[in-house]
This record gives sequence, structure tokens and C-alpha cells, in this order.
Amino acid sequence: MKKLMNDPADFVTQSVAGMVMAHSDLVSLNSTPLYVTRAGAPAAGKVGVISGGGSGHEPLHAGFVGPGMLDAAVPGPVFTSPSPDPIQAATAAVDSGAGVLHIVKNYTGDVLNFDMAKELAEAEGTEVASVLVEDDVAVEDSTYTAGRRGVAGTVLVEKIAGAAAQRGDDLASVAALATRAAQAVRSMGVALRAPVVPASGEASFDLSDDEIEVGIGIHGEPGRHRQAMAQADELTAMLLEPVVADLALREGNQVILFVNGMGATTSPELYIAYAAARRILEAHGVQVTRSLVGSYVTSLDMAGASVSVMRLDDELLELWDAPVKTIALRWGM
Amino acid sequence: MKKLMNDPADFVTQSVAGMVMAHSDLVSLNSTPLYVTRAGAPAAGKVGVISGGGSGHEPLHAGFVGPGMLDAAVPGPVFTSPSPDPIQAATAAVDSGAGVLHIVKNYTGDVLNFDMAKELAEAEGTEVASVLVEDDVAVEDSTYTAGRRGVAGTVLVEKIAGAAAQRGDDLASVAALATRAAQAVRSMGVALRAPVVPASGEASFDLSDDEIEVGIGIHGEPGRHRQAMAQADELTAMLLEPVVADLALREGNQVILFVNGMGATTSPELYIAYAAARRILEAHGVQVTRSLVGSYVTSLDMAGASVSVMRLDDELLELWDAPVKTIALRWGM
Repeated sequence: MKKLMNDPADFVTQSVAGMVMAHSDLVSLNSTPLYVTRAGAPAAGKVGVISGGGSGHEPLHAGFVGPGMLDAAVPGPVFTSPSPDPIQAATAAVDSGAGVLHIVKNYTGDVLNFDMAKELAEAEGTEVASVLVEDDVAVEDSTYTAGRRGVAGTVLVEKIAGAAAQRGDDLASVAALATRAAQAVRSMGVALRAPVVPASGEASFDLSDDEIEVGIGIHGEPGRHRQAMAQADELTAMLLEPVVADLALREGNQVILFVNGMGATTSPELYIAYAAARRILEAHGVQVTRSLVGSYVTSLDMAGASVSVMRLDDELLELWDAPVKTIALRWGM
Repeated sequence: MKKLMNDPADFVTQSVAGMVMAHSDLVSLNSTPLYVTRAGAPAAGKVGVISGGGSGHEPLHAGFVGPGMLDAAVPGPVFTSPSPDPIQAATAAVDSGAGVLHIVKNYTGDVLNFDMAKELAEAEGTEVASVLVEDDVAVEDSTYTAGRRGVAGTVLVEKIAGAAAQRGDDLASVAALATRAAQAVRSMGVALRAPVVPASGEASFDLSDDEIEVGIGIHGEPGRHRQAMAQADELTAMLLEPVVADLALREGNQVILFVNGMGATTSPELYIAYAAARRILEAHGVQVTRSLVGSYVTSLDMAGASVSVMRLDDELLELWDAPVKTIALRWGM
């Protein structure tokens, strides 16, 4: 299968370098070890907020670096956690003295390497807090995970935590709000076509022409079941109802509804799913207060989508609405 | 092939309705005939700027409706021009008395239908000017086109015209600036994989596993030639050199460099192509003053990319930098 790339071994470094080149007003590159910081980091007096993980989920995480969101992102190899070294270096680079929050998706490699980086950073005198995102309701344990996987909900957690840090909250408060956000968001996804991994040039799993995988992970990990393709309204209900149940949403709840594309799914398709999801939530008496629709947490060029819902309270809504200026998410500045 | 949709006949109406539902702060829907306006249109005293064309190129055009860019977008059926009726209705809806500019991509159907809508609107007393975008240097005539096709450069023309209208220029000035922008931008694209059309469920053309189409149109129209897949650096040079030659770029010129994804191509791939394009331009002594990288003018879920370059002068740069608030392009507000 064809990809717009040079040597597959350079896929991550060349793309990150190109991204920083195109957006040098927003982000700066550290090549060795590889991480991306907000331009002008560290931001004086502010808690640093960083995230990272395997590449292949762009714009997550580097696309969310900038005022009001992340201070740094650490991209690992495709679908592979970055080692502790770049995480530790990024942590040091964004520490202004107010400490650093690590936002970690729940995968075994990420958890181990962020934990080790945290210990190393603490040994050098940086205060570090950590929040785990485990929003995927599809399965309880998975290929690379003990417990639930961290998927698209991560974007919402990064936005909330970044806004709290930007307004001047201390590390404990930023961590508490990130935890509250992580507990308030749940997601589930479906794959229509497997992604092609750059190094192998092969589809990462087999799916026949009329088959889909319901509850897919963002690395192509198996979900709940395979079935024949169905219409968007039916598929959306299949993704959303477990989310609604897990969050125990009740009439009168206010939510952010986030329909996320997996990479190769077009925006018209995402908006068709969005309309279906919104009708379902409204039938439950749930009010869709804010919306996000787009390909923000991808799985290379997988075709498919996920639906995430975050239950809002007044403070989470205020932090969601706060200005943000990153490559992939920008409003109010 | 699978798509996230319900009845293919509802693909456009359901997706547009979902989009307007998700972004009701920015856009309003007119269902019959189908068009999308900026919320609160017409904007008092301002020239209206509208565009439209076949669907399947999202976020073009409806994703660019909002302050600082378009006042309305008219989505036709997939890959098929909207009829004169919705274009005329959209024209009337955004006319505050200052007249309306039509931005038309050069395809036979679009040109005919926008011309007819212009005549109808003028007969009802609306002053209408029109600008044709024909930025594709790949071929001189094509399947649906006499003369060059209008492709990704359209986004840049819409941004420039929208900014001119927003600052209060009169219709003649907005039209003149849009024309200047259209003459200053050139593009060329490549397909790695054909898109699948919703109605047929079939790939719109055949391309073997190691084959690419250089100079592809945004409806899958044939380009210059087919060849074996090559590395990104080589492909990017193949797209960019004809653009540089056609614009007669010289040392010291300032440009916007726009690397556009065709739908299913991931952002890391676009950034790899961007880095290659930037190196080539810099080797020509051309300064990349602004950059845009993303999937803005798509061909459903085609895999591939295009490279556009706009030669800047001080006024075009000022208009490019002006604040804009749309679904797909937003800065400064």
C-alpha cells in the first residue's frame, strides 16, 4: 500500500519536523530526544501540561501544543510508546518551577514509561503529577492494556487541563480537574477498514469488504465483535448507548458530544454520525451543550469513527470554552 | 465499499444538516433549496461572498462560511454542480444591498449554473460580480472543464475575498482582489488511491497497488500521466516544479505554501510533503511567508495530496492574516 513518505524509518521525524516548520509561531522542535514544545516554553509561573504516546494518532498530541492546552508533546515511534528519556527531557523543558502534569493514555508501555520519567524528573527536583485517561468503554482489558484503553476522550482532558493551567491553577488543582475530566468522558469506536502501518506497508488487521469491527482500539486492537456493515444511524446507536449507560447520563445532563474520525473517514460521514448521536442523546433528555466533530485522534488511515461524551459541570464548561491556540484546535485567539 | 452513511441519496442533506447542528453559532441552514449561510446573514452593509459546487470536497465550501470568509455556500449533489435555483436563493439571502461576489471553480456545470443564477439575481436587482478559479496547472482541458480546473487554490481565493468584504471594500474592489488572488495561485495534485462515491459504492477509477496518477483532478479526472509509486520528496518535486514555473517565481518572491490532503491522507504524510516543498521553494530563493497544511479541498476519501502556491504582495498578505472564524479555518477570533 502506498503512503506519501520517504524512508519509512524517517516517517515520524520527518513529519514532526515538517509540522514544526509549518507552525513555528506555535511550536518548537527538540530533535534529540524528540519532543515538541509550545514556542517560548517554559511559560513563566504556569504549571506545565504534557502528553505523548505512540505516533499514528495525529493531530494527537503535537497538534494540541500551544496556549491554553499542552506545553509539550512527546511522539514515540508509530503505535509505540516513547521511552522515558524524551518524556523526562520534555518535562524538564516545560517546568517553570510550578510543576508538570503528565496526561497518560492507559496503555502498558505509556504507563510504564511515563512513570519512569516522572521518577527521574522528581529526582531532579521537578514536581510531577499524573492523570490516566481510560475512556474506552468497549472492552475491560485489551491487547496493550490492563483496564480500559485511553482513546479520543484524551483531547477533551488535554483541553480542560490546559485551560486550568493557563488560568494559573496550581499543580494539585490542574491534576484534580484533569482527573475530573477523565472520569467524565467515555468513548467507543468502530473500524470500517484497517490502517496501513508505514513500516510494513500492510493493513494492521483483516476486515472483509462488508465487515466492521465494533469497539475497535486506536491501534487496531480487537473490539467487542465483528459484524456486517450497517447504516450510520444504527452504528452510531451501537457506539453511543454503552457510553450513555456507563456515564449514567440522566435527563437534564449537559454534555460535550465529540464525533471523531479515525483518519480516512470524510467529514460528511462524521456529521451524519453526529446528527444521529445528537438525536439519541436528546431522546435521553441530555442536552448537547458543546460539539466537536473531526479527525482528532486517528489510527493512521483507518476508516471509522468514535463517539465520545463528556458530562459537563459549570467549571468544565468554562475551561472547555477558554481560548486555545494550537495547530488542530483554536478559538478565542 | 463501506461508508458511514444511511441511504446514499441522503448523504449530502444529512451531512449538511449535521454540520449546521454542530456549528449553529457559525452557520444557518436553508433546506429547500439547499444552502448554508453565515449565522445572522445578511451582514449589514457588507458585500456578500458566496461559493458552491458539487459536494464531496468538504470542508470546501460550507466549512469556510463565517466572519472573514464566505457568507454562503451552495452544496450540489456529490461531484455535481448545484442548479441555478439554490445559487440564486443564496445570493438573495446574503445581499445586504452592497452586492454579491460569486467565486466559481472552473467546471462547465458550475460556470453555466452560476452564470444563470447571476442573471436571475441581477434581474431581481442584486448586483453580482463573478470570479473564476482555474489554478490547476496539470492539464489545459479536462473531463468537465474547458481550460484549467479550479482546485485547492479556491480556499485561498475565498479567504482573500472574504477578508476584503469584511473590511468593507465595495463589490468592485472585492472582485478585483479575488481576481488578483486567483491569478496568483497555482496547484497540482497526485492520487494514490481513488475515492469511493457514495451512490455507487465503487472506486471512481482504477489504480493498481503500486500505481499513482500525477496531475489528478478533484473528481478523479485524469491527470498528466500514471507511473509507479515514488518517494514523497520526488513526488512533491513533480507537483511543485510546474507550479513554480507557471507562476514564474523568482528569488525574493514571498508565497503562501498550501499542502492539501485529498481526504484519506494522514497529516504526517502532508507534513512530510510540506517539508519537501519548502526545501524546493527555498532552493529557488522563494520565501515561504505563510503555510497551510491539511485536508481542505478533498475528493471524498481519495488518498493523495496537492501542492498550491500563492505569490504574495503586501495587500494579499494582510488579507490572508485578517481574522477568520469558520468551521475549518479560524484565527484571530
